[in-house]
Amino acid sequence: MVTSRNLYAGLDIGGTKTAAILVDAQGNLLAQTRLPTDVRHADGVVASATTAVYSLLQQVGATPAQLGGLGVGVPGQVDPVTGMVSLAANLNLADFPLGPALADCFQTPVTLENDVRLAAVGVYHQRRRQGQAAENLAYVSIGTGIAAGLVLHGRLYRGSHGMAGEIGHMIVERDGRRCNCGARGCLETIVAGPAIVAQALTEGFLPPEPQAAHAGHVYQAAAAGDPIAQAIIDQVSDALALALQWLIFTYDVANVVLGGGVTTAGAAFLTPTLNALARLRVQSRLLAALLPANKFSLLPHEDNPGPWGAVLSVLPDTGLATHSIEETRNA
Amino acid sequence: MVTSRNLYAGLDIGGTKTAAILVDAQGNLLAQTRLPTDVRHADGVVASATTAVYSLLQQVGATPAQLGGLGVGVPGQVDPVTGMVSLAANLNLADFPLGPALADCFQTPVTLENDVRLAAVGVYHQRRRQGQAAENLAYVSIGTGIAAGLVLHGRLYRGSHGMAGEIGHMIVERDGRRCNCGARGCLETIVAGPAIVAQALTEGFLPPEPQAAHAGHVYQAAAAGDPIAQAIIDQVSDALALALQWLIFTYDVANVVLGGGVTTAGAAFLTPTLNALARLRVQSRLLAALLPANKFSLLPHEDNPGPWGAVLSVLPDTGLATHSIEETRNA
Repeated sequence: MVTSRNLYAGLDIGGTKTAAILVDAQGNLLAQTRLPTDVRHADGVVASATTAVYSLLQQVGATPAQLGGLGVGVPGQVDPVTGMVSLAANLNLADFPLGPALADCFQTPVTLENDVRLAAVGVYHQRRRQGQAAENLAYVSIGTGIAAGLVLHGRLYRGSHGMAGEIGHMIVERDGRRCNCGARGCLETIVAGPAIVAQALTEGFLPPEPQAAHAGHVYQAAAAGDPIAQAIIDQVSDALALALQWLIFTYDVANVVLGGGVTTAGAAFLTPTLNALARLRVQSRLLAALLPANKFSLLPHEDNPGPWGAVLSVLPDTGLATHSIEETRNA
Repeated sequence: MVTSRNLYAGLDIGGTKTAAILVDAQGNLLAQTRLPTDVRHADGVVASATTAVYSLLQQVGATPAQLGGLGVGVPGQVDPVTGMVSLAANLNLADFPLGPALADCFQTPVTLENDVRLAAVGVYHQRRRQGQAAENLAYVSIGTGIAAGLVLHGRLYRGSHGMAGEIGHMIVERDGRRCNCGARGCLETIVAGPAIVAQALTEGFLPPEPQAAHAGHVYQAAAAGDPIAQAIIDQVSDALALALQWLIFTYDVANVVLGGGVTTAGAAFLTPTLNALARLRVQSRLLAALLPANKFSLLPHEDNPGPWGAVLSVLPDTGLATHSIEETRNA
């Protein structure tokens, strides 16, 4: 028999799928699910989230009254104090009160945060459970965009305006390609998935699935010896290695975990990235000391840090909770 | 009459001068001094530090037995746990146990930390006293080298290896000039004082004091309309603005305070720096939102953040103390 208000749910609402888990107050996994996200309108996103939560509750025969809290991650900018989604392009949400909507629906405290940031929390706890605790850790997500989630001093760090870790918009090439953000030469114009594909196609790369070319194709072709793909991946890897160098020389985190769509190419992604870091290491003792290969790792395929970070942000006594929407509204 | 063990001293040991202050347990300033640093040998550095402390005690008629703690900043890499100075080139110190030496001398807890980091703590508290509290702040020192001290969540952040904020060695130009660290194209090879002078002299700039040319000469000449100096300062300012953009897009601090030798050119330094930031702001709404001119300021001339940060690191109940050498040795 489950105690009242002793269940906690974590949701990672992506542009395609919503991943969700249910845990008890000790963080033991009780149920999990994965459903399509309806991004046609805001109500659809709310419905996807509530459906996922009801599915979790049903799996353990529980009711919403037993929910002690709900943690939610979304791909975009949020205000964790008000629970507003300022902008989440892939969810078609702008200035939408997702936190209050879900708090009203389930009558339970809701925390809302950026998905990459919550994934960083999930990765941090996963490593801690495995005895690989490091007080300072970065999770770098490389996909359609690029962002880093930071756990510093064992605590989620979001900066003064929730923009900490927005490394995708660090300017790399002063007069480089125009970025979606309007600026020129942002890191995303070189290292993000669409940029990799665009550069490869421009250079004459022939993808195996021309209608659905993705960065993984370029990485795999480079690994297989395609000279055009290799030249592109060398450039991309050099730019990524520089970005990782900046991340280390600003944050000095003990570990950098790489995830996101581009990294699912696996070894075909990691090997040229580590080779580019090795090219930096030979330059100086300082670089050799601060950029060892074992500081960087791929997010394991089986890991599910998004919903874990979400649920950890609302679980009591983890020291990771930032803001709870219900609490804020009652304050 | 001063209570026993109720006095706290803060020292900022520079390559030329040692600045020191004495405060009571409430942080009220009781005495201050500024003496030359003897950097000829390690014992000279210790003697300079102890002379400064005795001078402070003498000013208030106190004895070493009344010292509750001593905070010390040095320009270099330190291990705050052991009190070892790993390397402080300007003090001629390498692998020297400065913390234990001073703890033995005064029989009081000693904290040792990098000087830029302690200056960041001093700036943070100075602003807090003035009601300008921001939870996240960066102090950027631009002189012979470049480094940032970070206060995050109201707490000093040093990273996993004490290398957080070593932005002087962020690689800006992949095949740029060789840096002292061995790598190519570090930020210091463009924006640090010696680099500014070297670039100006190469371009034919005639400094007013050829035997003692410094970056301030170039900034002042640029402000006065010298075209060679203006071209150099434009380039330097663009590189500095990029570095500040990176600092904001990684840390998202609310304020960046600029200090160090190069910034003592005052308005001649700040105006072209702000102009370069303005050139970035026009590129995108994101840059406009995150790089407003009022986020950046010069360290006021009268401020003395080094010794203040040092004494705050050892004062009880500030939440800023990191490690105390005496406590560590007795642990």
